[in-house]
Amino acid sequence: MRNYFAEFIGTFMLIFIGTSVVVIGNTAATPVGTLGIGLAFGLVITVMAITVGGISGGHFNPAVTLAMVINRRLDMREGLFYVVSQFIGAIVASGVVSMLVRALKLPVHALGQTDFPKITSMDAFFVETLATFLFIFVIVIVTSQRFGNPQLAPFAIGLTLALLIMATLNLTGASLNPARSFGPAIIAGGSALSHYWVYLIAPLLGGALASFVGILMGAEK
Amino acid sequence: MRNYFAEFIGTFMLIFIGTSVVVIGNTAATPVGTLGIGLAFGLVITVMAITVGGISGGHFNPAVTLAMVINRRLDMREGLFYVVSQFIGAIVASGVVSMLVRALKLPVHALGQTDFPKITSMDAFFVETLATFLFIFVIVIVTSQRFGNPQLAPFAIGLTLALLIMATLNLTGASLNPARSFGPAIIAGGSALSHYWVYLIAPLLGGALASFVGILMGAEK
Amino acid sequence: MRNYFAEFIGTFMLIFIGTSVVVIGNTAATPVGTLGIGLAFGLVITVMAITVGGISGGHFNPAVTLAMVINRRLDMREGLFYVVSQFIGAIVASGVVSMLVRALKLPVHALGQTDFPKITSMDAFFVETLATFLFIFVIVIVTSQRFGNPQLAPFAIGLTLALLIMATLNLTGASLNPARSFGPAIIAGGSALSHYWVYLIAPLLGGALASFVGILMGAEK
Amino acid sequence: MRNYFAEFIGTFMLIFIGTSVVVIGNTAATPVGTLGIGLAFGLVITVMAITVGGISGGHFNPAVTLAMVINRRLDMREGLFYVVSQFIGAIVASGVVSMLVRALKLPVHALGQTDFPKITSMDAFFVETLATFLFIFVIVIVTSQRFGNPQLAPFAIGLTLALLIMATLNLTGASLNPARSFGPAIIAGGSALSHYWVYLIAPLLGGALASFVGILMGAEK
Repeated sequence: MRNYFAEFIGTFMLIFIGTSVVVIGNTAATPVGTLGIGLAFGLVITVMAITVGGISGGHFNPAVTLAMVINRRLDMREGLFYVVSQFIGAIVASGVVSMLVRALKLPVHALGQTDFPKITSMDAFFVETLATFLFIFVIVIVTSQRFGNPQLAPFAIGLTLALLIMATLNLTGASLNPARSFGPAIIAGGSALSHYWVYLIAPLLGGALASFVGILMGAEK
Repeated sequence: MRNYFAEFIGTFMLIFIGTSVVVIGNTAATPVGTLGIGLAFGLVITVMAITVGGISGGHFNPAVTLAMVINRRLDMREGLFYVVSQFIGAIVASGVVSMLVRALKLPVHALGQTDFPKITSMDAFFVETLATFLFIFVIVIVTSQRFGNPQLAPFAIGLTLALLIMATLNLTGASLNPARSFGPAIIAGGSALSHYWVYLIAPLLGGALASFVGILMGAEK
Repeated sequence: MRNYFAEFIGTFMLIFIGTSVVVIGNTAATPVGTLGIGLAFGLVITVMAITVGGISGGHFNPAVTLAMVINRRLDMREGLFYVVSQFIGAIVASGVVSMLVRALKLPVHALGQTDFPKITSMDAFFVETLATFLFIFVIVIVTSQRFGNPQLAPFAIGLTLALLIMATLNLTGASLNPARSFGPAIIAGGSALSHYWVYLIAPLLGGALASFVGILMGAEK
Repeated sequence: MRNYFAEFIGTFMLIFIGTSVVVIGNTAATPVGTLGIGLAFGLVITVMAITVGGISGGHFNPAVTLAMVINRRLDMREGLFYVVSQFIGAIVASGVVSMLVRALKLPVHALGQTDFPKITSMDAFFVETLATFLFIFVIVIVTSQRFGNPQLAPFAIGLTLALLIMATLNLTGASLNPARSFGPAIIAGGSALSHYWVYLIAPLLGGALASFVGILMGAEK
């Protein structure tokens, strides 16, 4: 049970801090900007991987869990409970952010949801797949027994997410994580919800590809 | 005595650097912004935990000391001296900042105090309790014998504080620490002082809850 | 083959993330600024050195590879394949960025290429030589058997690049890497291409000098 | 000789990168701001301490060298050569920055020199003494045999400098280092030179006090 709680609280932290920074910390008077948003999401992964990584592996992302099931570091049944814990963490986090946004009298439908107003669905799908592939490629290598480095892995993983968010935020909102997009979308609705399929399928595809490339490179030997 | 001096100087550094960045480093010409303010408070904890953490444990916060008394890593009498050292460090720091603010001819009542002009007391109480709970949850896990990581703990703890400040600065000023709020409030007075009860009670409650959850997770075994 | 793939994907990441941050993450609404651009390029080196540094050494830069051939840590034939992998990674990355820039309807010739509109070729040559010398001096010392520190090397190397970019971005675009400049230049053309010789020769010269100074200091004993 | 070269190049890097970021990286179009300036100076110390700290101890600052002579970790004669190397590094760095500023046609007397236009000499003296005391207190503890942590010391030291600069930049330019202030002042002249005595004496006093407090705390046993 402890590992599921770790996935719940890590994913809660990711969405609570990440989307709060976007909607509460990034207002006109004190913008945190693209650098601050990237670092917020990325460094949550770093700190929670240090804190509860030893308990659950520190996924906080269904696409990571899928990759770890494919390369057989996690069995499928346990992986399913991981994903459920992640989605619950994300929904609770967006519920809290929604409450805080109301308390501040900010627009109630701005919850840090991901969307792609400037590009086509196909381009968005490509961006999310590529970015998640690169993110999870780093994860499968840096946490592998053969090539990995346990002390530095939390920094490599969190900073990679921060960098990929800085690069792609203006394109798709830089989700790379089906749970991260689901929490805000289910409460805010609108096109964030109708476009959710991109944020569900593309990261899972990117994660699966990364897992296969990791296997090809011999990371699972 | 050395451990009380460590708590004094660490808390002094936290409030001296953190509130100086807010009132002196964040002026119109060169704003450090929400990212800079979060990193300033958070990274002081990181550096002082590296520097004197081996001497006192590196609390610099009465809510952390309370959590460590509850989970029996510190005895109550010693904890009391920790808290006194922390409050003295905070008051001396705010005295120095007050002097610097006068030297610069800035508004003398702006000392980086915490307050919640945009939300209700109840919402502020909830935000400070939740943020401190998350902060001290990370601390009790990452410094535990069972799940902890001594080399990376200073980074996990400091960055968690930085992130929680970035997320909640616009709501309550993001104290999470009764000593941090007391220093500026006792000198500046006004609503920072009359609202101080929120910054005293909510962080202590959050810290106590985090300690109990840590015990439930088996961190103290 | 695995080491060539490591050089390919590391260099791809460097140019994909670095130049995307410049052209996509640095638009008027959400500027990442000089700090964000420096950290983007620098921290990619940090994370990819942690991730695949154990496989290929983590060069991602022909000037680094030249330095490692001069000080005999890599044989020349293998070095040649490294350089080819790096150039392919850079070109593919700039192709992807070019596609994303079209998708966003941004100016199609702005691909994060390096150029020096404000200074002479001779000054630009001096800046790129000096900055690359300092960058690769850090690399040869911090990765040497005699003076090196494998755990901290990825941070020293990546942060040095970030700092040198912050210092020289306004002068030459801060390349320090013939592959990094080639990818965008070959697609964007114009003066970035006609000035490319500076970004080819100056970094190689700086890298060679750093290697010699490293040998003089006894780093290769 | 190798240790004097390490002090020369480390101090060169500190002043070359730090003051270039101030005068070249901080122009109106792309301001790096107080956060970027603090991180630039601070992280140079981190990377050069990782790189050549094993060779010379990584002082790059006469006030640090004085503290290390007082607590008998360095003999006085060697310390004198350290200080000479540091001053030469600073002067050469400011010479290079001066050349780059001319190349860019920026104001030739803006070289990142330190001064205190808004406060009195006495206040400036107090700020530099206090900030240097805190900086070198961290250094003497974190590099001591008894309380120190060699792996994390470069981060603690560099980040402490970054934080103290963020806090005091608007007051005195945040030197904390007689060599850092001398290089730009000797070339730029004016009040930076006539006020230089503050940046010479106050940091040395702060360093000496930190050394004594370190001895009192038992760091040298």
